[in-house]
Amino acid sequence: MSGLFITLEGGDGVGKSTQAQLLEDWLTDAGRAVLRTREPGGTELGEQIREIVLHHRGDIAPRAEALLYAADRAHHIATKVRPALEAGTVVIQDRYLDSSVAYQGAGRVLSGDAIRDLSLWAVEGLLPDVTVLLDLDERQARERLDAAQKRFDRLEAEKAEFHARVRAAYLELAASDPRFIVVDAARDPQSIAAEIRARVEPLLR
Amino acid sequence: MSGLFITLEGGDGVGKSTQAQLLEDWLTDAGRAVLRTREPGGTELGEQIREIVLHHRGDIAPRAEALLYAADRAHHIATKVRPALEAGTVVIQDRYLDSSVAYQGAGRVLSGDAIRDLSLWAVEGLLPDVTVLLDLDERQARERLDAAQKRFDRLEAEKAEFHARVRAAYLELAASDPRFIVVDAARDPQSIAAEIRARVEPLLR
Repeated sequence: MSGLFITLEGGDGVGKSTQAQLLEDWLTDAGRAVLRTREPGGTELGEQIREIVLHHRGDIAPRAEALLYAADRAHHIATKVRPALEAGTVVIQDRYLDSSVAYQGAGRVLSGDAIRDLSLWAVEGLLPDVTVLLDLDERQARERLDAAQKRFDRLEAEKAEFHARVRAAYLELAASDPRFIVVDAARDPQSIAAEIRARVEPLLR
Repeated sequence: MSGLFITLEGGDGVGKSTQAQLLEDWLTDAGRAVLRTREPGGTELGEQIREIVLHHRGDIAPRAEALLYAADRAHHIATKVRPALEAGTVVIQDRYLDSSVAYQGAGRVLSGDAIRDLSLWAVEGLLPDVTVLLDLDERQARERLDAAQKRFDRLEAEKAEFHARVRAAYLELAASDPRFIVVDAARDPQSIAAEIRARVEPLLR
């Protein structure tokens, strides 16, 4: 493969889309062919699967849900991402297998290892060259919530705990694999973009 | 589990539905609660997945297709079959994981072992108590085709070869696992039904 596979990970609202856009602009200016895509979805089949998962939410057996996400991933990688990489394109993807591992692991229904194995089988072992983890400080996220709402209700507290588990799972993944770059998402977007470029730039040569 | 899980396997047209009906009638007469079901499908979610697989036929990455079937299976077993078995019901099911292994194995795109592992993960290891393989003699199937059509065209020949591979895969599965009973599907339906009852009857006590 002559392309480069870059994934962006992290909780909702940490700025993945902004960074994907800045990275795409920089790469395009440098004359590289870029494909921006996302999971779930990203293909027509994927959108149909996404519809099913959303429509039936709460009513799908946990393993069935994991298998549906893996099916979306298998199709997306086989029909869109892998051909692009083989054509030398730089692929910038919003969420990939680390999302499944972090969120399912945090959900505690299925083990992270099982989810990872399933995803890797689905995509025939394709791992990103670089994964950017946009990490948002726990207290900072909490302070924002505190500022917006006087008191936590039970649901809010559960949500905060859930997001803390997602973050912990992401950081554990990042610590064990050198393909990750962990960036403090509380910093200004241009500084973050520069940090990402510094990591990507040597891989383009 | 106090129920009994019986699956029917074999190619299309070998008489699975007839035997399922005869078995259901006999069990119902004996006062047993019976659930007759099938894969793919068998649940509302399963029907939606079946629609996707059929609508996109030829256009789905092989692993995505395998994962969609596994998702259907996971949901069907978790929400319908396992609860029925736990309630003491006898479940008679048209096609289960052996179908996936035999057909995918015959299709040669994915290994039978991979398909089996995927299915077993999907259903948390649930295997049938008895699997009835309705085996149709190769030459007999061919003679029927010969009688209906003067010459094989290339597609027909490929079909025959494909079905021969499916049959061989089924017989290999049956030879390695004592849960199988292999029945000659060319015999009359009542004789076949008696043979199946003889195998099932001791398990009901």
